[in-house]
Amino acid sequence: MDRYVTDIHERWMGLALDLAGAARGQTSPNPLVGAVVVKDGQLLGSGAHLKAGTPHAEVHALQMAGRAAVGSTLYVTLEPCNHTGRTPPCTEKVIAAGVSRVVIGTLDPDSRVSGEGVKRLQEAGIIVTTGVLEAACLRLNEAYFHHRRTGYPFVTMKAAVTLDGKTATPTGDSRWVTGEEARLEVHRLRHSHDAVMVGRQTAVQDRALLTTRLPEGGKNPVRVILDSQLSIPLDIPVTDTETAATWIFCTDGVDEGREAELRKRGVSVFRTGPGPRVDLEKVFQTLGSKGILSVLSEAGGELNASLLNEGWVNRVMFFIAPKLLGGKDSPTAVEGAGWERMEQAWELDGVEMHRFGQDWCVTGLPRQTRREGS
Amino acid sequence: MDRYVTDIHERWMGLALDLAGAARGQTSPNPLVGAVVVKDGQLLGSGAHLKAGTPHAEVHALQMAGRAAVGSTLYVTLEPCNHTGRTPPCTEKVIAAGVSRVVIGTLDPDSRVSGEGVKRLQEAGIIVTTGVLEAACLRLNEAYFHHRRTGYPFVTMKAAVTLDGKTATPTGDSRWVTGEEARLEVHRLRHSHDAVMVGRQTAVQDRALLTTRLPEGGKNPVRVILDSQLSIPLDIPVTDTETAATWIFCTDGVDEGREAELRKRGVSVFRTGPGPRVDLEKVFQTLGSKGILSVLSEAGGELNASLLNEGWVNRVMFFIAPKLLGGKDSPTAVEGAGWERMEQAWELDGVEMHRFGQDWCVTGLPRQTRREGS
Repeated sequence: MDRYVTDIHERWMGLALDLAGAARGQTSPNPLVGAVVVKDGQLLGSGAHLKAGTPHAEVHALQMAGRAAVGSTLYVTLEPCNHTGRTPPCTEKVIAAGVSRVVIGTLDPDSRVSGEGVKRLQEAGIIVTTGVLEAACLRLNEAYFHHRRTGYPFVTMKAAVTLDGKTATPTGDSRWVTGEEARLEVHRLRHSHDAVMVGRQTAVQDRALLTTRLPEGGKNPVRVILDSQLSIPLDIPVTDTETAATWIFCTDGVDEGREAELRKRGVSVFRTGPGPRVDLEKVFQTLGSKGILSVLSEAGGELNASLLNEGWVNRVMFFIAPKLLGGKDSPTAVEGAGWERMEQAWELDGVEMHRFGQDWCVTGLPRQTRREGS
Repeated sequence: MDRYVTDIHERWMGLALDLAGAARGQTSPNPLVGAVVVKDGQLLGSGAHLKAGTPHAEVHALQMAGRAAVGSTLYVTLEPCNHTGRTPPCTEKVIAAGVSRVVIGTLDPDSRVSGEGVKRLQEAGIIVTTGVLEAACLRLNEAYFHHRRTGYPFVTMKAAVTLDGKTATPTGDSRWVTGEEARLEVHRLRHSHDAVMVGRQTAVQDRALLTTRLPEGGKNPVRVILDSQLSIPLDIPVTDTETAATWIFCTDGVDEGREAELRKRGVSVFRTGPGPRVDLEKVFQTLGSKGILSVLSEAGGELNASLLNEGWVNRVMFFIAPKLLGGKDSPTAVEGAGWERMEQAWELDGVEMHRFGQDWCVTGLPRQTRREGS
């Protein structure tokens, strides 16, 4: 492909990506998908997948283009499906519309679909190009792809720390580490994740709501609490399930009366094994099987250390405030027993730095992760 | 001044700043100064102050210009001196050279000089413009200006931390937190500082050399060790004063035999009072009076907390490595007792972020500093 053609492809695929991303938080357990229909350099149709069970992006875009779609190029961020799910296969719609060429961001990792959509289109005489802005198209649905591949949700570990690494004072005050812009971004993250996870202590001490509070509205994630003894007080905010669901994971030997009381309040309780600690494998297996594709962990240092130690963290997001707190006993974002040698630290790949008001956010992918599941 | 003239002035002043900065680490206790001589848009002379006791920047630049300096404009980052120090006053040289106009970055905070140079030049009929790229000219010599104003050295607190704020493992291993580029920058910092400071523990545990090790050479700072009991072992690297000077600050009641042994090795010992801790005020008073304009603190969490608590830190430099270490007992860069509320944290102004290889460096100025001395 010469550079000129590549540029054109990337421009239209970029638009399809923007469309897909605009529905962030709406489509789970389905992926985000965007599509545009183009002929002679002119936009004829555009669409995004909006919600599971409703038409796919290609269908919206082709509908908008109508009869003008004959001889057009369809750009779509994800390979069109060739199977009947809750909606009929998109490939047949594309063929019936008379599209001449389909440009695809990335193949579908779903084994029922991967490559099948391309094959069907080619059999029908359509020219197919794949891999345009592939990295961005993969990242758009990293949680979806991870879940398809492993059965587990994609876990993002989020923390807010001072420049000297503290998450709170020795007495537990953490309001606020970062400024308004960074805190707003955390609410955007909650909106775009299926679940948010904390340990018992964070739920109790911070009396955290863990809901999405954005000026423009937004969706609440399922609130996942790890509480091995099921000893969480009944009067803390997360036990109020009016606004958002709460799922507590504990061990087998917990008090049945307590469990019943929580259930009465609408809380779901999951026993994960004999203990003494909650079995993280069981937690993520359960979440994955219940259609939770993405988890935002907002846990404290001990749970974070366990998550890292067992390789559950797929992405790290550290919001860093330009201030120093000090305090030998001020908690930090990752605690646990620690390593003996500095070289044993968890290295991050693909590190990026973004500014939010006065604060920064460092993101990266831990090198040691069970990327393919256990 | 219209924008066109401002642009021209800033361009030449920028060159003078570059010249000045190129002598970083060479001029203490004198400031860095650069100068250029320009006529009809052409460069006629350039110079920088290279070393205390040798000619000032203006003199070099005018010498290079020779007779062509008549009717020229002299750009100089710092107000020319009007007093006789180790060299004769620069103002007379400027007047004698026939310069028509002098453009100055910033006035000299030295009370013997401030405004006097400008006055003398104006009396001689020379047009004087001040405050061109003033912020950069002030920053170029921030340690020099701070020392002139307060009598104390300018203290930069440097730390190397993981993303989760750790400086070492619980067992003390800290080799290495950051990568090569960041470590090279620390050696550049040592070169450009008059002194480097650590507590006893860092000197002993890390067996730190605290010397400047740059591929291109460089100057060693004075190594300042705070050791209240003078209990430092005699066989650690810093007691070898062959390559660099070592000054130990302790309390009054220390063992005289030990002091004598250290002195025999060429170490200077300063008693700062009854104790139990080293009196930081005495330390910085002594350093300031001995011509130490800048101190790079590479201390651990306890000393860093004391430095911040007492308002001695003028600049913070945190090198952040994109890795997570964990460990509840892993040391952090600022410890001490800590605050009760998050809002009591030390806020930083003028925060900047620079990249060094895989690592970042956050710099900022603590808001609570005894900027004018006590």
